[in-house]
Amino acid sequence: MTATKGDTRTRLLDTALGLFTVHGVEGTSLQMIADALGVTKAAVYYHFKTKDEITEAVAEPALRELSAILDHAATLKRHSAQVDYVIDGLVDLIVRNRMLVAVFCSDPGIARAVERSLHGEENVMTRLPAMLVPPDADEGAVVAAHVALAGVALAGGSPALMAMDDERLRRHLGDAVRRLLGRPRRRENLS
Amino acid sequence: MTATKGDTRTRLLDTALGLFTVHGVEGTSLQMIADALGVTKAAVYYHFKTKDEITEAVAEPALRELSAILDHAATLKRHSAQVDYVIDGLVDLIVRNRMLVAVFCSDPGIARAVERSLHGEENVMTRLPAMLVPPDADEGAVVAAHVALAGVALAGGSPALMAMDDERLRRHLGDAVRRLLGRPRRRENLS
Repeated sequence: MTATKGDTRTRLLDTALGLFTVHGVEGTSLQMIADALGVTKAAVYYHFKTKDEITEAVAEPALRELSAILDHAATLKRHSAQVDYVIDGLVDLIVRNRMLVAVFCSDPGIARAVERSLHGEENVMTRLPAMLVPPDADEGAVVAAHVALAGVALAGGSPALMAMDDERLRRHLGDAVRRLLGRPRRRENLS
Repeated sequence: MTATKGDTRTRLLDTALGLFTVHGVEGTSLQMIADALGVTKAAVYYHFKTKDEITEAVAEPALRELSAILDHAATLKRHSAQVDYVIDGLVDLIVRNRMLVAVFCSDPGIARAVERSLHGEENVMTRLPAMLVPPDADEGAVVAAHVALAGVALAGGSPALMAMDDERLRRHLGDAVRRLLGRPRRRENLS
């Protein structure tokens, strides 16, 4: 029974994300999620009481991963090692979650839900840019970090690049972010 | 009388943009716009029949400018000159329209309205990345152009950089985009 419950929950979140992609968070109702799953609205309510709970649950695993990446990076001694670790982790996370990232970047509904779910703990969205610029960074480096973060997220979820396979997108996004942040290219990416 | 009508229209669009920034396009009603202006809903109807018309009118001047930038760039002979012209024009346009860009990037409502208003003419959002990569560009250059465009727009509208004055933001965004696209820095920006 537990396995079945887990499967339904996973299917429900996958279905919700698919509907969010097409209709936006605001444009998706619990009824639409139930219909797409071929279950009753009561079955959806068994797992989640509100759409906000679903939105938070859709985004939660990726945010938890991102938080873990930042936690581990903070334990590294050299700032350059921290930056490299965060770039690799972030790009990989984005490429593995392209659909989620696309919704995340284009829908204020999910952004608001994520803000709520992060309430109380230190916000990853604040820690992230801080981690990418050295403590003595000039203003230009701060702007470059914002361009890198926004650019890699939005480009990673872009429909124009959906056809590109994960490995190539990962390499190209990593190269772009490194160039922006003044980090050398990964040896394995030189061709 | 014409001047008054023009002023009201301008005030209406400025007010609408301000409300969009706080509540999103979906979360803003014609009644809220009327209330914020201190006029009746009928007075709003005199200028615009639907919220979609307002949304389109809010975004239109900037889109028209962007289109003109791309048209002029296309008349330049060398691809490097085209890229430089588009970078300068785009960055300047973004910096002068930070609030609009912030709403534009975070709200599917305005993006959909813009898509509708562009229906029929060649879409600037397709022309823009095409203009930034040379005809023989490799895949990495295409990804870098997407990162640059998404990054400069989202970072340009970012609340984290709102306090930075226009001139400095323009310089730093320009530098970041040039670094990404492999263009040399502007001489006047070297310090």
